[in-house]
Amino acid sequence: MIRLNETHDPALRSWIPSANTSNTDFPIQNLPFGILRPNNAQGGAEGFRGTVAIGDQALDLTLAADSGVFDPQHRALARIAGEATLNHWMAQGPAAWSSLRGALSRVLRSDASPATQAALSPCLIPQARSHMAMPAQVGDYTDFFTSIHHATNVGRLFRPDNPLLPNYRWVPIGYHGRSSSIAVSGQTFTRPFGQTMAPGATEPVVGPCKRLDFELELGIFLGPGNESGQPIPMAEAEDHLFGLCLLNDWSARDIQTWEYQPLGPFLAKNFATTISPWIVTLEALAPFRLPFSREPGEPQPLDYLDSPTNRSQGAIDLQVEALLLTSRMRAMDQAAHSLAHTSYRHAYWTAAQLVAHHTVNGCPLRPGDLFGSGTLSGPSAAEACALLELSVGGKQPIALPCGESRTFLEDGDTVILRGWCDRPGAARIGFGECVGTVLPARARCA
Amino acid sequence: MIRLNETHDPALRSWIPSANTSNTDFPIQNLPFGILRPNNAQGGAEGFRGTVAIGDQALDLTLAADSGVFDPQHRALARIAGEATLNHWMAQGPAAWSSLRGALSRVLRSDASPATQAALSPCLIPQARSHMAMPAQVGDYTDFFTSIHHATNVGRLFRPDNPLLPNYRWVPIGYHGRSSSIAVSGQTFTRPFGQTMAPGATEPVVGPCKRLDFELELGIFLGPGNESGQPIPMAEAEDHLFGLCLLNDWSARDIQTWEYQPLGPFLAKNFATTISPWIVTLEALAPFRLPFSREPGEPQPLDYLDSPTNRSQGAIDLQVEALLLTSRMRAMDQAAHSLAHTSYRHAYWTAAQLVAHHTVNGCPLRPGDLFGSGTLSGPSAAEACALLELSVGGKQPIALPCGESRTFLEDGDTVILRGWCDRPGAARIGFGECVGTVLPARARCA
Repeated sequence: MIRLNETHDPALRSWIPSANTSNTDFPIQNLPFGILRPNNAQGGAEGFRGTVAIGDQALDLTLAADSGVFDPQHRALARIAGEATLNHWMAQGPAAWSSLRGALSRVLRSDASPATQAALSPCLIPQARSHMAMPAQVGDYTDFFTSIHHATNVGRLFRPDNPLLPNYRWVPIGYHGRSSSIAVSGQTFTRPFGQTMAPGATEPVVGPCKRLDFELELGIFLGPGNESGQPIPMAEAEDHLFGLCLLNDWSARDIQTWEYQPLGPFLAKNFATTISPWIVTLEALAPFRLPFSREPGEPQPLDYLDSPTNRSQGAIDLQVEALLLTSRMRAMDQAAHSLAHTSYRHAYWTAAQLVAHHTVNGCPLRPGDLFGSGTLSGPSAAEACALLELSVGGKQPIALPCGESRTFLEDGDTVILRGWCDRPGAARIGFGECVGTVLPARARCA
Repeated sequence: MIRLNETHDPALRSWIPSANTSNTDFPIQNLPFGILRPNNAQGGAEGFRGTVAIGDQALDLTLAADSGVFDPQHRALARIAGEATLNHWMAQGPAAWSSLRGALSRVLRSDASPATQAALSPCLIPQARSHMAMPAQVGDYTDFFTSIHHATNVGRLFRPDNPLLPNYRWVPIGYHGRSSSIAVSGQTFTRPFGQTMAPGATEPVVGPCKRLDFELELGIFLGPGNESGQPIPMAEAEDHLFGLCLLNDWSARDIQTWEYQPLGPFLAKNFATTISPWIVTLEALAPFRLPFSREPGEPQPLDYLDSPTNRSQGAIDLQVEALLLTSRMRAMDQAAHSLAHTSYRHAYWTAAQLVAHHTVNGCPLRPGDLFGSGTLSGPSAAEACALLELSVGGKQPIALPCGESRTFLEDGDTVILRGWCDRPGAARIGFGECVGTVLPARARCA
């Protein structure tokens, strides 16, 4: 179900000036949720609180709840959303989410009374003077494989004669990932060690990964869960989606090649996963929904993966971009270099289909669970969202501005993901950034 | 590191008579930890508390902490172990675990003073008048594949010409499972729906699983975790193991066959996983450790998977058995029928090796994380620990006592897992039971 409220008026402005600039990710039409701690806060986890982003500020929802600007119902909702993780807020469901967003929009817009503005001003925290934490305690993380272009590009490298496996067009392929290794933007990690088997070798070796990659994905946070044994049908699936963020599924390709059969990726993926910290609600994305359809010749989804709403507006035209900033570029004060740019509209499976598929066997989802969309590679070569594809399996180096080139990531490389929705007649909805940096490997294996 | 304390004396007896019977799983030498709620407790999660099993009783550790029998140090430890989940207790590490077990042994043994016995008697809860909960909040669950016999048996069904993949002998193969679907003994679940592709068909169908299986595994609960990027070396790996339980990795083989490539099992496994509720500590298993070695012709483990301690006593001679009780057997008051019996000593990789491998890339483990050993099939046909193997891919039905037969599980079937350690000169250490029952599928898919 796609919900609409006043936040969709593209002409709406806020009394917070930074929310009205043309390049902000966080106009009043967005109001993404995130967990943040002011730099001057007292120590301990209790310093973190639920906020919404507005321009370059974050509104502390716990303080806002007690500011006197809300009626009792919205005060109660703001208190839940203001907790130190968003899990309880995610559990509330779309009516509560929409109600609080509507109330926030009313008190943040430019025609809010002077008394409201005066009451809320002390609840604003400058984003630049704070740091962010995981938006939720992720109980389970599932990574999907929703780009048929990525599946085909990668499959061609592993199986030139049989790039796309026969189940792909029927099954929204996914696997369970590692919750403990997920962190928000700013994550750094040492280049992982692992086993690799060189072509023609008879024994594997252990050493630092030599084919370190990023994957440009979206993260999808789940709202209300389901009881074990109770599937979520397509007609209800979107009511279980809280919001989206950017996600970088860092991947060690050489480790993956050796380990992944028969049970799938494991150590190649579970050393680090970075997400952007602001969770953009499905409601904020409503103006950017598109029909979902299969290309001619592709099979139609099975009944349990189909619904009228999914056909009419299951897709999202969400632009995503991956950029690289090397140590050398940083030293030479160069801007990050764009590696890939595509839209989530190309996904072979919608977020609602992922929910319906994940639960068709009765698997229980819980509020705060996270899905990864899978690498979002679009149909053209410039839309390939991992170095493995961009460098054609490491065979075609990518030229960078300062005379460097890359097949895979080197130490000191920073990958920046960006995402935004933009179209005439709608306010621009941004996702902020998802930034992560590769540190050199440890000196020894263990 | 394997630790020893007075609980290993096989002649030691308890003042609780049921702990001294020859067939108890829980003599004073065992003292497994579990989370339990008396049937007459007040509602809410707060009714659950940490306990240790002793005979047919459970000692409430929160009550015991305040009973006056402990010094301040052990009182503090008992309070941590008495919380509503064992996560904090698991985080304490082996010195704390051993210290409290020693103190518990002293106050529970038959020469404890009458005052001690009188003080602790009100802290005992009859196991039969209580129910158990998950021992810990499982942050991440990883299922391994440590039986080379299982890997070969199953691989032969999928790939007759190439049963064991070349990475098996080098990589402790594992994949991430689903935390949300794990429950303790007594779990029931509806037969899962899913997609399957019949041989020769051009389109998959959706329906109830037709090849539902169990897998007899061990569960391994992790103790202290590691920081992201900091591997746990073999020399320290056992210090991160809290204890073991039984684990049934219910599996939908027809769904698995269609979905598992290229990213591994997903909906075929994440609808239900059952564990036994009492967690037997590594210390209690110390008398049953065995040398770990490779058969002639097998490669030696790589350095990061090898240690002197692992070679001298990395294995555990833990007997495991799977039994089946059908609806008809239940109606005819028959005893459960044994399907398979083997020992964990046959595992190709030890628990310590799983820890070292899982973290070699820097992947962070957390207290309360769970590993599955993988199906424990031993070298002979009667030691195959899943119906897929026992029925040779469904081709050879297994005869049951009441004239029934099975290739895979039918509705109403109950699978019972048991585990125990027994040898001359040592007290018998039991694991209790891990029981789960298959309910009929829902009437419709979703």
